[in-house]
Amino acid sequence: MAKWTYGFGDGAAEGGAHMRDLLGGKGANLAEMSVLGLPVPPGFTITSEVCNHFYANGETYPADLRAEVDGALGQVEKTAGRRFGDPGLPLLVAVRSGARASMPGMMDTVLNLGLNEATVEGLAALTRNDRFAYDSYRRFIQMYSNVVLGVDHSAFEELIDHRKEDKGVSRDTDLDGNDWRRLVGSFKRRVQEETGKPFPEDPLEQLWGAVGAVFNSWMNQRAITYRRLNDIPESWGTAVTVQAMVFGNLGETSATGVAFTRNPSTGVAEVYGEFLVNAQGEDVVAGIRTPQSLTKAGKAANRSRMPAMEEAMPEVYGQLVDIQHRLEAHYRDMQDIEFTVEAGRLWMLQTRGGKRTAAAAMRIAVDLVREGVIDEAEAIRRIEPSSLDQLLHPTLDPTAPRTVLARGLPASPGAVSGRVAFNAEEAETLAHQDVSVILVRVETSPEDIHGMHAARGILTTRGGMTSHAAVVARGMGRACVVGAGDLRIDYGKQQFTARDRLVKAGDIITIDGATGEIMLGEVATIEPAVSADFELLMVWADRFRRLAVRANAETPGDALTARRFGAEGIGLCRTEHMFFDAERIVAVREMILADGEPGRRAALAKLLDMQRGDFVALFAIMAGLPVTIRLLDPPLHEFLPHGEAEQAEVARVTGRTLEEVRHRTRALGESNPMLGHRGCRLGVSYPEIYEMQARAIFEAMVAARSTADAAVTVEIMVPLVATRIELTLMKAVIDRVAGEVAGEAGARLDYSVGTMIELPRAALRAGDIAAEAEFFSFGTNDLTQTTFGISRDDAGSFLETYRQRGIIEKDPFVNLDIEGVGELILIAVERGRRTRPTLKLGICGEHGGDPDSIHFCHKAGLDYVSCSPYRVPIARLAAAQAALAEADSPEVASRE
Amino acid sequence: MAKWTYGFGDGAAEGGAHMRDLLGGKGANLAEMSVLGLPVPPGFTITSEVCNHFYANGETYPADLRAEVDGALGQVEKTAGRRFGDPGLPLLVAVRSGARASMPGMMDTVLNLGLNEATVEGLAALTRNDRFAYDSYRRFIQMYSNVVLGVDHSAFEELIDHRKEDKGVSRDTDLDGNDWRRLVGSFKRRVQEETGKPFPEDPLEQLWGAVGAVFNSWMNQRAITYRRLNDIPESWGTAVTVQAMVFGNLGETSATGVAFTRNPSTGVAEVYGEFLVNAQGEDVVAGIRTPQSLTKAGKAANRSRMPAMEEAMPEVYGQLVDIQHRLEAHYRDMQDIEFTVEAGRLWMLQTRGGKRTAAAAMRIAVDLVREGVIDEAEAIRRIEPSSLDQLLHPTLDPTAPRTVLARGLPASPGAVSGRVAFNAEEAETLAHQDVSVILVRVETSPEDIHGMHAARGILTTRGGMTSHAAVVARGMGRACVVGAGDLRIDYGKQQFTARDRLVKAGDIITIDGATGEIMLGEVATIEPAVSADFELLMVWADRFRRLAVRANAETPGDALTARRFGAEGIGLCRTEHMFFDAERIVAVREMILADGEPGRRAALAKLLDMQRGDFVALFAIMAGLPVTIRLLDPPLHEFLPHGEAEQAEVARVTGRTLEEVRHRTRALGESNPMLGHRGCRLGVSYPEIYEMQARAIFEAMVAARSTADAAVTVEIMVPLVATRIELTLMKAVIDRVAGEVAGEAGARLDYSVGTMIELPRAALRAGDIAAEAEFFSFGTNDLTQTTFGISRDDAGSFLETYRQRGIIEKDPFVNLDIEGVGELILIAVERGRRTRPTLKLGICGEHGGDPDSIHFCHKAGLDYVSCSPYRVPIARLAAAQAALAEADSPEVASRE
Repeated sequence: MAKWTYGFGDGAAEGGAHMRDLLGGKGANLAEMSVLGLPVPPGFTITSEVCNHFYANGETYPADLRAEVDGALGQVEKTAGRRFGDPGLPLLVAVRSGARASMPGMMDTVLNLGLNEATVEGLAALTRNDRFAYDSYRRFIQMYSNVVLGVDHSAFEELIDHRKEDKGVSRDTDLDGNDWRRLVGSFKRRVQEETGKPFPEDPLEQLWGAVGAVFNSWMNQRAITYRRLNDIPESWGTAVTVQAMVFGNLGETSATGVAFTRNPSTGVAEVYGEFLVNAQGEDVVAGIRTPQSLTKAGKAANRSRMPAMEEAMPEVYGQLVDIQHRLEAHYRDMQDIEFTVEAGRLWMLQTRGGKRTAAAAMRIAVDLVREGVIDEAEAIRRIEPSSLDQLLHPTLDPTAPRTVLARGLPASPGAVSGRVAFNAEEAETLAHQDVSVILVRVETSPEDIHGMHAARGILTTRGGMTSHAAVVARGMGRACVVGAGDLRIDYGKQQFTARDRLVKAGDIITIDGATGEIMLGEVATIEPAVSADFELLMVWADRFRRLAVRANAETPGDALTARRFGAEGIGLCRTEHMFFDAERIVAVREMILADGEPGRRAALAKLLDMQRGDFVALFAIMAGLPVTIRLLDPPLHEFLPHGEAEQAEVARVTGRTLEEVRHRTRALGESNPMLGHRGCRLGVSYPEIYEMQARAIFEAMVAARSTADAAVTVEIMVPLVATRIELTLMKAVIDRVAGEVAGEAGARLDYSVGTMIELPRAALRAGDIAAEAEFFSFGTNDLTQTTFGISRDDAGSFLETYRQRGIIEKDPFVNLDIEGVGELILIAVERGRRTRPTLKLGICGEHGGDPDSIHFCHKAGLDYVSCSPYRVPIARLAAAQAALAEADSPEVASRE
Repeated sequence: MAKWTYGFGDGAAEGGAHMRDLLGGKGANLAEMSVLGLPVPPGFTITSEVCNHFYANGETYPADLRAEVDGALGQVEKTAGRRFGDPGLPLLVAVRSGARASMPGMMDTVLNLGLNEATVEGLAALTRNDRFAYDSYRRFIQMYSNVVLGVDHSAFEELIDHRKEDKGVSRDTDLDGNDWRRLVGSFKRRVQEETGKPFPEDPLEQLWGAVGAVFNSWMNQRAITYRRLNDIPESWGTAVTVQAMVFGNLGETSATGVAFTRNPSTGVAEVYGEFLVNAQGEDVVAGIRTPQSLTKAGKAANRSRMPAMEEAMPEVYGQLVDIQHRLEAHYRDMQDIEFTVEAGRLWMLQTRGGKRTAAAAMRIAVDLVREGVIDEAEAIRRIEPSSLDQLLHPTLDPTAPRTVLARGLPASPGAVSGRVAFNAEEAETLAHQDVSVILVRVETSPEDIHGMHAARGILTTRGGMTSHAAVVARGMGRACVVGAGDLRIDYGKQQFTARDRLVKAGDIITIDGATGEIMLGEVATIEPAVSADFELLMVWADRFRRLAVRANAETPGDALTARRFGAEGIGLCRTEHMFFDAERIVAVREMILADGEPGRRAALAKLLDMQRGDFVALFAIMAGLPVTIRLLDPPLHEFLPHGEAEQAEVARVTGRTLEEVRHRTRALGESNPMLGHRGCRLGVSYPEIYEMQARAIFEAMVAARSTADAAVTVEIMVPLVATRIELTLMKAVIDRVAGEVAGEAGARLDYSVGTMIELPRAALRAGDIAAEAEFFSFGTNDLTQTTFGISRDDAGSFLETYRQRGIIEKDPFVNLDIEGVGELILIAVERGRRTRPTLKLGICGEHGGDPDSIHFCHKAGLDYVSCSPYRVPIARLAAAQAALAEADSPEVASRE
């Protein structure tokens, strides 16, 4: 027969911390603390299996539950020396929900349960404190009515306010025992009016009501949504913990508080927390009174005049510090503790792993290693990789005042202030004058890249987390807020409105790419500093990880950032980004507008010098680390402007007629550019383009070797391959040019040629393609677009609805779709390696910087991930975690 | 030791027809005819293995080949009673190439080989005909110099012309023996000048020169291209046949001719062919003299005065007819025969299966079954399914004169004349006046569908074989020419130019969708009639096939056509096509422009009646056959116009401001509509749309059952599903509406709900999706687009280059890409059936009407294919062939 309840208290327990699944986090830790001999008020936990039974059987309890609860309650009565419902020596209990994972949205707590007309008098007599007893009773009625009976808070607030008005006072503390007794009567009448039933007098009825409310709250809408968003299975269920009440509001020797075993903001090993004298737990939460610091140091830091616990209750404080040390040593992690002091006696009500900032997490993990509490692997496991983002970008000073205009999606972290510019040219002009600029656009396109580079922040009113603006901004490490739909931009008037506020070009705004907030004027920020702890943790991570980490970078600036953050090479150098510079775009456009191959070659000859220079600079910075260069990818029309004025300018500069420019722009236009004439299709149509790029690469290799000692390791990547023969043809062009340059320079050129796997067909035909390719790089952005049939640029119109309706849980452009795209990757890995066991495998889509996706890449057996420079540390950490997880439970990614 | 040569002649042979791979078609059939005892001049064939040896060994021959050839030549000399190079009794030979499959682009034939200064005199003496001997000699020099030595034809023509001028005559026949002797001298000098070497005198040198030329021609560019386009492996190689010459030009009792055992145009069982008296084979080809008919009937039909062979050479004619019967009985198929009569003696030079028109192929196959020569299965195997297209559409009268303006791609067969209209409205207006219209557009969009329907033919200047215009036209059975890039349309001036020709709106043009020709004015056409043979063959096909055949149809007209051609249901009813009607588009646009769900519902209510009517009509025609209805698929912006004037009109009709219409059009605009907010994504965003469509379907089912006795079998198809849950949600909407309608009508509704598999992810997740779907229909158009990452609308700019460069052999939108898209289909079939063994599987993309693709569908185990109504017979035949092929060599489609 199943056991439904587990008791604890008095230095013993039927359960422990290892029974979290059955008892919930709260119940398990209360049992654990009991076993450790800490002072825990006695109680028992009704298991999560009861919750499952409840829902599997038409919301009824197991037949034998009632008897077990009676028995467990009897044990609590015995330990506490009081009896439930006994007017003489009444036992009061707290009822709390407790799931395996912390879950907002569920019923939380009912305190003081067991009070009724009779026991309240007993409590008053026992404590010799009328006010305390009736205050406790009215609190119980309020909480119970609210969370169990569904009566709104305000019903009771109103009655309290009336009472205070009648009495001519303003604070709750001005009400005495008599006032509360009268209010208890009013409360009960109100409950009768609202629910049609009297407030329950029977303590057992109260108890079962509260237990039922906990179980019912497991299936309320908020809890369901929360579970879905956090991958929590419904089958986990919730437990219910029933525990004898202790009172922090019995007078000046009573108190209640919370404590962290280390500072959760900084991670410093110090006692950190606050308490309230003569108060119950909810008072700390309600924030009506200002809590006092636990320590004198804390008191000084807060410039508080109220005594610290260290001063006010030195003995109890000593016990608390001792218990903190014992708990941290036991749990081997920073703890978040709740305690109550009842008439000078310390009671522990909860302990759990404490939430902390990224910086604190880092510091604590490193300190715990130094203290010999945990090992390096454990330190690595403890840091959430994406939290590092906070440490790598400036953040708003949390104390600075601000006026929030609107909110968009937090697309690229960092908080910056700057003058509003509505086009790329203006942004560039201002930036040249050393003005900090926020580029504000409905959306951005490759034409805007120079402006995005010049700007410190980018704000768009359309697009999602993976729109052009978002992707480019993350790549450049620019702060970015996208999809701020409440803004209305009027390019003509050079202004935007946010509801009733008007912002003109040149006005200063601040955007926070970590929250999505758009603020008026300048808001003070704080600069990040990469700490020694951070560096140390990275060194440890590198020891464990198997995946190499590279960066996506084109400019010397990006390459330097990448190296600073520990990138082991460039995994994706997008050569088209090098073409948008004002000087070069003219030659690019001449090439596009040329009537035939000779004209194209003449224009390409002009680009050759610049392109060669790009690579010389990159090779010098990368100093022998591998550099993967992707040949031209976007369709040519992306390099032509669409506005009449810009077209006229292009005509003038390139010596063509406006009509020619217009006609060519129209002719190159595409219905679905994403699936159009781009990638290696350009190389097949115009081999002279790839020829020029190959020559620039090889000549740069020769030049770099003559100026630096370092070897240059070049991987040339052909994009958008769908068939083996495309790669065969393009490789032939590259190899021929290599032969020519080698001949001219009298040098040997070492390089490899590979391809992006970014089309489903390429993944399926990987076995064939690997016969030509020396490496694969998974272009998961495009692979996600084609596998799902979803355009990143257009997904904004329905992806949010999809999330709301539960069709997708996470944006597949951020979080790799393991089931679909992931299987194609596994197919390609398997088939590619079968053909060529030495095939080098990497990923260079946005997913290369996403921890979950990195985990998958590790399991899939890739050699490296490549991500934006600012995500390199995240990737290093995530890769180490993936390796550790594999060591913990070895499993290989496998497909259906 | 390998045997390199195979002799034949004199009623015996070392080879036979079964040795086609080794001896080539020509050599194998000559051997076969010898064995049959037919009069075949003796000869031998050098095998295709020699060709392979030649290329595998640096273009050298096997060491023992020369000795074998000497031996084989000796045998020919013995049989012929003449000797090679013997001035007294010279043996002359013909050298011919002969691959396993007929291959234009290779060296064809060298006749009269063995002639030199000495043997020509022997030939003259032997035939007592100086002119004949020197005419033969000069012909030999011309042919040999051209095909072996690479000297241009014109070099010799020029010399002949000079000679005729000197002599003051105009015809070759006016030149005598002496003239030809002098010309032989001039020819040789010219060869010496051009090649720097004398023309070879040694017959053996001549022979090896010719043999080498045959082998070399296997690898010339034209042959390589032809092989690639026709899937002929290089490894097949070519054979060389060396055969004793017989002469049709020895005087009035000599002749040469070609004969078919049945009429290749009509298939009628009659002797068909022509001959020339006193001529060599090449004279027939050269077309200088008009050949005479073989039969008196043929002579009468041609209104010829020249005697038929039946009259001129009755005895030889009798032998020829007898041989024809024997050959047809032996080969069990219509034969194409070449023969020569030398001084009254008949010699057979070649026999092979004769090329024939689709109509003839049909007639012959059916007749051969009636005659008991072949069985029904064989008759089915003999018809090329795509040739049926010729029989189902009007064709141009081949005798009618025409002025060709330009040429485009033959997108949809049929030849039609009509007045030029440049927009859909004008086309509709004219059509209502019973004017035949050709709609001429740069390209078409869904907005043009009503105009395309109204037009008899469609002509576009952009787009490829699978552009919107092409696909829709094929679906509607409209003639269509696309991508006619030489035309310049000026919509403003309502005219187009084709080089120097101007065509204005209202002018008549003719287009031929089978050839791509665009002609000025009206060109007479001939209407097709589906013959009794055709019907019979279809009945036989239906007996063998396992795949069911359905049609893609929306309109009653299309549905009727589909049934007439034997469709067993509708596999794809695209509901959006029903929305473009002038009356409905207003309500559709109201729905799109509505501010919220209530407004959308009001507009949808208007559409409900019309949509219900559509289905009632379809159900009545289909009379119980299954009808698969696809819910709305295209993105909403396809229903909004982009021109200012049209937008103003929409604003007027829907009671909105122009600005509202513009804004909504812009807001709905997409960068990549193909990957945008369409398919079930619309259903998720606006469930009320699918709700209306489901209600229309179910109410139509109720209505149809009350008016007709037939059951209605409805399959509701949800498009563009990528995840199971999308289908779950849409199925819930459909099932709910079904419940409502069933309740209102007091009826039970039988229907099934399934999905398109048209995204790679859907194929991969088929196991999951099949838990919800009762059927899958492979939407191979979109699946090809996403798997390849190629937009059909934009592929025109590079697919042709891809074909030229050998990257793709066939347009993947016409011919299913078995390696890529095919594997996804196999994955989906396997996983879908694993979850749901009763899952119904079909295909409804363009590939459903393509024979190769149908073959794959059969092997993949699908239940049906669905194609445009006009391709239904093709699909029935192809499906039967697939079943027969499987019976011949059972193999299941399998994936890597």
